Amino acid sequence: MTADLDLDLDLDFAPIAKRIRESVGRQGFMAHIGAELSELARGSCTLAVDRRPELLQQHGLFHGGVTAFLVDNATTIAAATSRGQPALTAEYKLNLLSPAAGDRLICRARVIKPGRQVAVVAADVFCLMDGIEKHTATALASIAMLEKVPEKISSPA
Amino acid sequence: MTADLDLDLDLDFAPIAKRIRESVGRQGFMAHIGAELSELARGSCTLAVDRRPELLQQHGLFHGGVTAFLVDNATTIAAATSRGQPALTAEYKLNLLSPAAGDRLICRARVIKPGRQVAVVAADVFCLMDGIEKHTATALASIAMLEKVPEKISSPA
Amino acid sequence: MTADLDLDLDLDFAPIAKRIRESVGRQGFMAHIGAELSELARGSCTLAVDRRPELLQQHGLFHGGVTAFLVDNATTIAAATSRGQPALTAEYKLNLLSPAAGDRLICRARVIKPGRQVAVVAADVFCLMDGIEKHTATALASIAMLEKVPEKISSPA
Amino acid sequence: MTADLDLDLDLDFAPIAKRIRESVGRQGFMAHIGAELSELARGSCTLAVDRRPELLQQHGLFHGGVTAFLVDNATTIAAATSRGQPALTAEYKLNLLSPAAGDRLICRARVIKPGRQVAVVAADVFCLMDGIEKHTATALASIAMLEKVPEKISSPA
Repeated sequence: MTADLDLDLDLDFAPIAKRIRESVGRQGFMAHIGAELSELARGSCTLAVDRRPELLQQHGLFHGGVTAFLVDNATTIAAATSRGQPALTAEYKLNLLSPAAGDRLICRARVIKPGRQVAVVAADVFCLMDGIEKHTATALASIAMLEKVPEKISSPA
Repeated sequence: MTADLDLDLDLDFAPIAKRIRESVGRQGFMAHIGAELSELARGSCTLAVDRRPELLQQHGLFHGGVTAFLVDNATTIAAATSRGQPALTAEYKLNLLSPAAGDRLICRARVIKPGRQVAVVAADVFCLMDGIEKHTATALASIAMLEKVPEKISSPA
Repeated sequence: MTADLDLDLDLDFAPIAKRIRESVGRQGFMAHIGAELSELARGSCTLAVDRRPELLQQHGLFHGGVTAFLVDNATTIAAATSRGQPALTAEYKLNLLSPAAGDRLICRARVIKPGRQVAVVAADVFCLMDGIEKHTATALASIAMLEKVPEKISSPA
Repeated sequence: MTADLDLDLDLDFAPIAKRIRESVGRQGFMAHIGAELSELARGSCTLAVDRRPELLQQHGLFHGGVTAFLVDNATTIAAATSRGQPALTAEYKLNLLSPAAGDRLICRARVIKPGRQVAVVAADVFCLMDGIEKHTATALASIAMLEKVPEKISSPA
């Protein structure tokens, strides 16, 4: 791909990325978790969160719910990058592979199939231990691609 | 089943329920979400959480990550009730059915198959709107049943 | 619901049921398996197949692939009944609960959420042993609802 | 890894591979589908099947049930290679990505996590069209690893 094409894609993607960042910035739960949107590109998204006591379960590991939140959000955001359409999680499956120990949890999502009606997105979650990433979870999600934000969810109570 | 047998089961279950409640009480993330363990019985568990701004997404609905947390925790707890064995989420699949609006999110999990190695648990999530429960998500989970808490997760950093 | 409304629904459903039965009748794989469409109604579908040596695995049980075929087909057919729209499996998750022994395998699918874009359908599979049904598998599927059969799949080679 | 170690692994793996091939050879359903075990190695397995009318659905594509069968079998076989333990499908999730057209369906499964109790296995299915492989499905499976074949499934009726 030439630099010119890259530039064009960047120009197209910039307003989409801006809109997504603003939208994610309005998620109260994202702030409550303390997660950050650390990478955003066409077809992919990385979310990460640092270890804090209030994110853990009874054995001092990241709670599975934190992993699930990262997967839910990162897959939907990755889907939204592909065409700039609003995207809603339809479903996902999450396999926990190993204890989520360590100092930081990182979720990388990538679009496998950018469908117009349903996008399929994979995600892998890693925990950072002594500078080394360990694979802690893997997920597969179906994201409903919307024409526009439906009335019933665009007017919050 | 006779009343005597019921009583015996109750006697057996009391220490299991106590241990589960203590264990859940040590989850920092449970407190951070503000969820409560509202029902606990052999083979089932109900978790619930009231609406607060920090649990919402950008359209004022409960964030999908809150739903996922309830499913993750309720299915594992339900599995743990069946034999008193420690239980670890192996995987689950979650379908979001409708926008999670309303004042309260309620997740009911019930064991479908109480396996010794893997238990299968279903969960349904409802949101309470004007006193009426609306079905907002459904899930199917596989929970690994442990002989005892493995060393590597029983000694938190 | 009054008898008149029921009648109207029956009148509406008859041509949908006819179209579905014809479509399923053209599935070479359905005949190869020897499965039958034993029940069809608004929002539900039952498929069944009798035990034959060529449907088994190495231990004499129904092969998991037969269970998966029944789930795949029954969930899509159930979704197609709800509005008469063509339906395509987007994804499903299948949990095997117990060995699929016995003389007959029966899969019952029911629509949980009849969405216009994505329908959510649950299915349970039972094996008939000495006249008793045993729960052998449970599944949760997302079915893409199409406006019409897309060009690329309506013209078979 | 040195050549010596490779050799040792080959020596260890040969009897496992032999046992797996014999076991798969006794699956009536494998023969009924006409699938072949085209590759087998530590942690991976490839199954493939050529197009035949009796494997198709009403639009002339491979039936989703054929894809599901390949996924079910390939993921379990891949898990069985890792330690030579018998393996039973616990559950899987399958996303269909594009119409399964073409002359041949190929399913490649690889172990992601070779657990002692539960192995996690990913699978991708491709259809061969004019010599080019197209990605038609992706799946994620949990496979129960057994100590030995349980009594109840080792004595077929």
